[in-house]
Amino acid sequence: MSYTVEAVFSPLLYPHKLTEDDFVVVVVDILRATTSICAALEHGVEKIIPVSGMQEAEAYKAKGFMVACERNGQVMPFADIGNSASDFLDPALQGRTIAFSTTNGTQAVNIARADADGVIIGSFGNISAVKNWCVAQNKNVVILCAAWKNLFNLEDSLFAGALSEMLLEHKNYDTGCDSVKGGIDLWHNAKADVGAYLSKCSHRSRLKHLVSDNDYLYTVTQDSNNTMPVVVDDHIIDVNKR
Amino acid sequence: MSYTVEAVFSPLLYPHKLTEDDFVVVVVDILRATTSICAALEHGVEKIIPVSGMQEAEAYKAKGFMVACERNGQVMPFADIGNSASDFLDPALQGRTIAFSTTNGTQAVNIARADADGVIIGSFGNISAVKNWCVAQNKNVVILCAAWKNLFNLEDSLFAGALSEMLLEHKNYDTGCDSVKGGIDLWHNAKADVGAYLSKCSHRSRLKHLVSDNDYLYTVTQDSNNTMPVVVDDHIIDVNKR
Repeated sequence: MSYTVEAVFSPLLYPHKLTEDDFVVVVVDILRATTSICAALEHGVEKIIPVSGMQEAEAYKAKGFMVACERNGQVMPFADIGNSASDFLDPALQGRTIAFSTTNGTQAVNIARADADGVIIGSFGNISAVKNWCVAQNKNVVILCAAWKNLFNLEDSLFAGALSEMLLEHKNYDTGCDSVKGGIDLWHNAKADVGAYLSKCSHRSRLKHLVSDNDYLYTVTQDSNNTMPVVVDDHIIDVNKR
Repeated sequence: MSYTVEAVFSPLLYPHKLTEDDFVVVVVDILRATTSICAALEHGVEKIIPVSGMQEAEAYKAKGFMVACERNGQVMPFADIGNSASDFLDPALQGRTIAFSTTNGTQAVNIARADADGVIIGSFGNISAVKNWCVAQNKNVVILCAAWKNLFNLEDSLFAGALSEMLLEHKNYDTGCDSVKGGIDLWHNAKADVGAYLSKCSHRSRLKHLVSDNDYLYTVTQDSNNTMPVVVDDHIIDVNKR
């Protein structure tokens, strides 16, 4: 039995994907939602609720939830913390449930939930955990890039290439997807120094004043953690911790 | 004064493009519509009318037009010729108007016409002519990949990278677009042997029984011709011939 690997470079393209049945989806938004969600679970947050807009985040706050929400690098007045990976290092967050504001990430999670047999969260930090989880499912794999305002971005596409290559090295996977082939080629150009490669990507330039050097190093480092964030109903938990 | 270069990997992403004003669009569908349209004009066809479906092609035939239309490598019974580059070598086609059936290409041309200041047709065969035409416009440039069933494909993205690089080497152009940066990286991987590189692309594999070796060589060869197909109203003409 062999399974397919497909990469989708924008949520807008997801309805046109080639994979039709028996698949899991890996959602990736390297800068920054899925990286920060992994960081939160790694450091002991119990549960993440992805919310899409400012209004929804504020509504969760009003219901008594702890909320992670910022705009342009500033923690919103109603929120408890921001959305950077380093915002989740505080030991006081251990065991908590946090409503996490992410426009692109939430959109991607929601469209994947509608037809996938499972939805997980990927980042460079947990890429081997993601690969191992996918292999254990015995399903086709779709890697969904959250993209930037629906447009192709380098950082998510690189991750798609890196994960595709890991899966294709496993004998059970095959692909007929140009996005996978292109992603793997880009990954080969980048993997010797992911940080340097991504420093030329537009989104990193845009976020330069928002992402600290430490956060950036965490973002581009592979296998720093073994978290396996799985979407269950409306929230995300680390199944490797159970 | 400097201008921007943007690449859009699917017609579905076009409404989200970053470029807002004062731009021309280069439509590209390497396998095969834009390559064949260039071939037709190169060999003396006077005018191409891009049509989207079988039904529209048949309607043009009923109105007395010469029609290029095939499905699965077979010329349709109502059509005069197929859609391969080599279908347009016949000297009898010189000076003729041909309704050319292309689903992806026509869709791309139509969405670009709605907001661009000019729409042209690109292929590897006329890439330098395209670059020169763009430079002469003094406008921003958007490269629109016709894609394959709306999904990213390698051949159109490579062309986007190749053309972007040529424009960016010109002092008047700049980019903040990840699709351009990714396309250029892919182009660097491919340019030593575009034919060999694309032989791994999914669409080439799909078309293998449809595209002859001669047509394929024509498809991947740069600067074989100096045609400059420009969309004028509902048709396409070679302005370098005027």
